[in-house]
Parts: sequence; C-alpha cells; structure tokens
Amino acid sequence: MTDRTYLDWNATAPLRESAREAVIAGLALVGNPSSVHREGRAARQVIEQARAEVAALVGADQRNVVFTSGGTEANALALSPAIEVAGDKAPCDRLLVSAIEHPSVLAGGRFARPAIASIGVDPDGVVDLDALERELAKGQRALVSLMLANNETGVVQPAAAAAEIVHRHGGLLHVDAVQAAGRIPIDIKALGADLLTLSAHKLGGPKGVGALIRRDEAIHIADPLIRGGGQERGSRAGTENVSGIMGFGAAAAAARAGLAAERSHMLALRERLETGLRALTPDAVIFGAKSERLPNTTLVALRGLKAETLVIAFDLEGVALSSGAACSSGKVAPSHVLAAMGVEPALARGAIRVSLGPTTTSAEVDCFLEIWRKLVETLSVSEKRGLAA
Amino acid sequence: MTDRTYLDWNATAPLRESAREAVIAGLALVGNPSSVHREGRAARQVIEQARAEVAALVGADQRNVVFTSGGTEANALALSPAIEVAGDKAPCDRLLVSAIEHPSVLAGGRFARPAIASIGVDPDGVVDLDALERELAKGQRALVSLMLANNETGVVQPAAAAAEIVHRHGGLLHVDAVQAAGRIPIDIKALGADLLTLSAHKLGGPKGVGALIRRDEAIHIADPLIRGGGQERGSRAGTENVSGIMGFGAAAAAARAGLAAERSHMLALRERLETGLRALTPDAVIFGAKSERLPNTTLVALRGLKAETLVIAFDLEGVALSSGAACSSGKVAPSHVLAAMGVEPALARGAIRVSLGPTTTSAEVDCFLEIWRKLVETLSVSEKRGLAA
Repeated sequence: MTDRTYLDWNATAPLRESAREAVIAGLALVGNPSSVHREGRAARQVIEQARAEVAALVGADQRNVVFTSGGTEANALALSPAIEVAGDKAPCDRLLVSAIEHPSVLAGGRFARPAIASIGVDPDGVVDLDALERELAKGQRALVSLMLANNETGVVQPAAAAAEIVHRHGGLLHVDAVQAAGRIPIDIKALGADLLTLSAHKLGGPKGVGALIRRDEAIHIADPLIRGGGQERGSRAGTENVSGIMGFGAAAAAARAGLAAERSHMLALRERLETGLRALTPDAVIFGAKSERLPNTTLVALRGLKAETLVIAFDLEGVALSSGAACSSGKVAPSHVLAAMGVEPALARGAIRVSLGPTTTSAEVDCFLEIWRKLVETLSVSEKRGLAA
Repeated sequence: MTDRTYLDWNATAPLRESAREAVIAGLALVGNPSSVHREGRAARQVIEQARAEVAALVGADQRNVVFTSGGTEANALALSPAIEVAGDKAPCDRLLVSAIEHPSVLAGGRFARPAIASIGVDPDGVVDLDALERELAKGQRALVSLMLANNETGVVQPAAAAAEIVHRHGGLLHVDAVQAAGRIPIDIKALGADLLTLSAHKLGGPKGVGALIRRDEAIHIADPLIRGGGQERGSRAGTENVSGIMGFGAAAAAARAGLAAERSHMLALRERLETGLRALTPDAVIFGAKSERLPNTTLVALRGLKAETLVIAFDLEGVALSSGAACSSGKVAPSHVLAAMGVEPALARGAIRVSLGPTTTSAEVDCFLEIWRKLVETLSVSEKRGLAA
C-alpha cells in the first residue's frame, strides 16, 4: 500500500518499528509470567520493564500501572462506584461524564444509568466547568470522567482545573488520555487525575493492550472487572498479553523520547493543512479551532457535503481518513461531539477528521489538499444537483 | 534456551510457527477494523477469516464466535445471570460450578456469591452428575459451568451427559474448553454446550486473545462485560486485537489439521512418561489415572516430596514444569482440585504437573525421567532428614 496516504491516526496509529521488534521478541518468550520456572520469570521480567516504560510516559510509578486489553477495558475498569481511596470504602454515588467522552465512557461502566449525569461543552468543544461544579455541589460523592483530548476535534480539556474542582468536592477524577498520549506531555500528578487510561495502538503500539494508571497506591479498585487470578496485583485477572505489553512498553518509550520533535512536526503539518483548507475553501469550518487542540487533529466540514461521500471518495483516491470516531461497528451515526458543541446537524453531517502522525509527510498533506480541491468542486456540483432534483 | 526442556504446556504453549507468521502479518495491517476505508476493511477481513478458523475448531458457526482478551475474560463474560435464549429474558437465578473449575470460573462472574453453588467430584476427578442433578432439582433456573478437561489432572469431564441433565432442568451449560482445545476433538453441538470458552495461547496461539462461542444465535448475552462500541456485534467493545486474533485463527487451523497426529504423538509420550515413573517410583500416585484424561497431562506426587522443591530443582536442571495451575501470581497455594478429589494434603503438596505438547520429544521425556530419578533419591533423603530434625 505504498500508494496510500494514511491520515487516520486517531482511529489507530501504524505500529512503531521499535514496538514491532518488541512484539516479535515477545512472541519468542515461551513462559507464562505466573510460572515460577526460568521461562516464566523471563516473561514476568519483560512485563515489568514495559510497565516502567508506560509509567514513565505519564509520570507515574510503575507499581500503579494495570495492564488491560485496551482503552475501552481500562475505562470500564475505572468507572466503578467501588473505588477506594486510602481505605475509605465510601462508594461513589454518581458518575459525571462530559458529553463528548468516548462511547466506552458514556456506557458508564458499572454505574446504574440513573446515577450518571452528563456535563455539557461550549461551542469551542471545551467542557463547562461551571456546570461540573454545579453537579458536584449537589452533594453526593462523584466519580468524574473527563477526557484529556477529544478524539474527533482534538480539543484539549481543562483536566487540571477539573481535578481541583472535583477534589474540592470530595470526588475522584478519571482522565481518558487515550488520544492525548504521545501527542502532548502528560503528568498524572500535575493533572491531578486519580485514574488515567492509555491505549497502546493510539501511540504506535499494538492493538489489544492498554492500561489503567493510578495516581498512587492509595487508590484501590475494589471490584476488578475481570477476576479469578492474581495477575496485575489482583486488579485484572488473566494470562498477560506478553508480546502486546512489550510492544506497548516500546511504543511508550519511543513516544516519550520523540514527543517534542513529533509534536512540532505534526503541528507544522497541521498548520500547512489548515492554511491550505482555508485558502481553497474559505467557508470550511474547522471545529474547535479557537481552543487548544492536539497537534495532529483537524475536524473540518463544508456545508452541503456529506462526510460518508467524502470518506469514500478520498478512499478511492488513496487517502484514508474518517468521518469522526471509528471506534464502533462501521455504522455512520451523527457525531455526539458536534451535537454537544451545538453544531447544526446539516453542517455536522459533513465533518471529516484528518489526523496526522509522526511519520506523516508534507507531500501527504499536499496530496490531501489536492484531492480536497477536486472533490469539493465535483461533489458540490453533484450535491447541488441532488438538492435540485 | 535450546538446552531447556519445556514440559509446562498447560500453563502456556509455545507459539506455533503458522501463528507466529500470522501475528507478524497482522502487525503490518495499519487499519482499525471499524474504519470504512481500505485499511479498515483489510483489518476487518482478516478478523473474519480468523473467526471462521476458530469456529471450525469446535464445529460452530463463525457468527457465534465472540473474540475476547483471553479465556479468563471469556469466562467472566459467560457467567452472567442475563443470558437470554431465543428472546427469553428470564434470568438464571443460580450458578452451579464444579469444584475443580479454573479460578476465573470459581470467581463467579456476575453472580452474587450466595447464588453460587459448588458441585463435587469423585476421587478420580470426575464431576458428580448426581450431585449436579440434585442441585438442579431445587427448581431455580441455573447456569452451569463445567470444564471440558481439568488443567491440573487432565481429567475429561462428562460434559455431554451434564448438558442433557442441565437442559432437562431448563438450565444452560457453559463449558470451559481452554485446556481441551487442540488436544481432543470438540464439537459444540455434540457436547450440547450453550457457551464454550477457548484461549489462544493454550493451543499454540498468542497470549492475550480468546473467545466465547455460542451454540447458536438463539443465545444472547444481554449484558456485555465491556461496553461502549459495536465491535463483536455488540457483545464485546474495544478495538480488536487484530494481530492476536490472526494468530489465534492460524493456531486454531493448525490444531484442527494436526489434531489426530498430535494427539497420538502426545499420548505415546505420556505413556512413556508414566511407564517410566511407575518403574522408577512404584509408590508415585498419578492423579485421575483411572479416568479418561487429556493425552498430554500427568499430575504426579510422591509422598514426602514437596512440589515447590521439585519445581525449583527441575528448573535448575533445565526442565520447566509446574506445581499445578500457573494462572495466578506465582503464589504457591494448595491445589483446590486435589482437595476436591479428597486427596490428603500431605500427598497433594507434592503434586507436580508434567504437560506435553505436539513438539515434545521422547528425549525430553527421558530427560525428565532421568532427573526425576536423581531428585527422588536426593530429596527423599534430605526431606527425611528435615522431618527428623
């Protein structure tokens, strides 16, 4: 697929070379990490090395990393009323989630539906902290889940400010950092997050592995989602995905080492992309453009164009991109993120997401722009004809 | 580790070469299977191929395979009171599990502790079907979980007979086939299992992937464990472990193609092993020897020897084996399986498990026997001294 241009890094990132090598090395390890013999101890050792690398990416202690099968499982594990802090077993009575969270957070974990409330965002895609405080002021102990950066718009959320508010009201904060990791610096302590979710495949690791990270050992997940084995210090049973975890560790190390350079590289390319978009189509709307965003994400719409049509047309021209979140079963649904931002449906249905990565080139951006130019001309005419018919 | 002899296949099996190649091919696939572009469709396609291969191993329809992160997650997913049959939403009020199930089944899934009852086994390690029937006759609708073969003794359970009893009482049967798959033929319909668990790494696939398989589409898991995405037809959310699933598919295909030959090969070696054991140490007890067993598993104890000591001594001599289940955090606990069989603790604490695989050689078996001979001599003397001291 050398003729292809992959601009869908928020759906999943190509595997980093060091991660690929680590996975392959892991495949050669015979042992079960729970076995006491040499093969078992060797498998255990590489897991602990990877744990340290993943912890370092977010400034955590490695003892506080719980490996899971991905971001979705980590979110499901985190969203429990039974999270204890320093032995305090008072349950969280409510779950507050921003309206733009990933579906795996919106699903609510192990909270009953009536215990879940949604916090709105402003037209720039930023969570409404006043609304959060009003909900917290209702008095019940709350677990709050706020993503660090939105997967569709790339808008960075005020997680540290939210943490201050949440803690002032005696609550706990879970931060889904799946899209932010590897793109902006993350320090779990500076953020004030009590729990934080990562996914390997969004930062150049393999699919099928993620982590839930605790601020410190005072946080205890009293009701693990997957039980019946002592792995992950009792927080997550099941034989560990040894090669996947090794790939995650290598990807985290590479993302950490390359962060500053990759970030500038992606930001420069995104500037090139958005400058080009504005020049070609001054009416195009870039969502969240006034907000702090991830360096790699552009969500753009042009009135009169349908995202499904654009995505397919780009695909035929050799460019992979998305009409928004790609995390579901291929079904096209209106974006809940744009709806929460108050974007009118007629515009929202045209939104396509262009997401870049550390190996994206300026030629690929130019390729996108050239196809955008062609498609906008062709499709605008045909859509207008369609409207007239 | 060419000087090593790996006899711990029930803890985890070395990766089959075809599975290794499939995983590596999967690592090169860039797309998210939920994406509509070419890269996404390519990833989707290989998952569906693997699904067909896994289904074929157990005579299921590929539509009824739900991929999970492993056997433990599949068991946790299966053990839900909210499993519907052909739209019948009457919940299962009780969970009946055999006393020798894997800890991930004994954990009980989403059943409340008081709703779980244990069914005993006889001294040969076979579940007591009369006891099962007595529990079922109590009238409440039950989900029954019975493993197809025990991981410690290798004893094959009368799952088909259990299915007949369970269904006669209006219950449902889940069969944990993790240890049986790839070692004896499995047909989900002939067994009469409503749900069946597989794990890739026990049959030569990668760690970190498994499956829960439904008898047919009438079975519906109304409350998925991991939610918030349409993957796996809504039964299991989260971006799929594409390369792991490909490896699982390849391992399942190889296990199916090689089953007859591998089974005879392992059985011949186990005969050699047990003949040797009996010749060297006539007092050694092979547990479940009177029962139908997997062709690869021998659980043996010699009074006066401690399993921990033996496992470490064998490891130092270059042989990897286990003191029983290796699925936990390395902690040495008495075997709940031997306890359920009524084995006296003094004997049970000496039990070591030798588990063979399709690439085990007779030289490796002879190597084990030679070390056994040496160790029994040395350790018997020192343990007797220890007792005398």
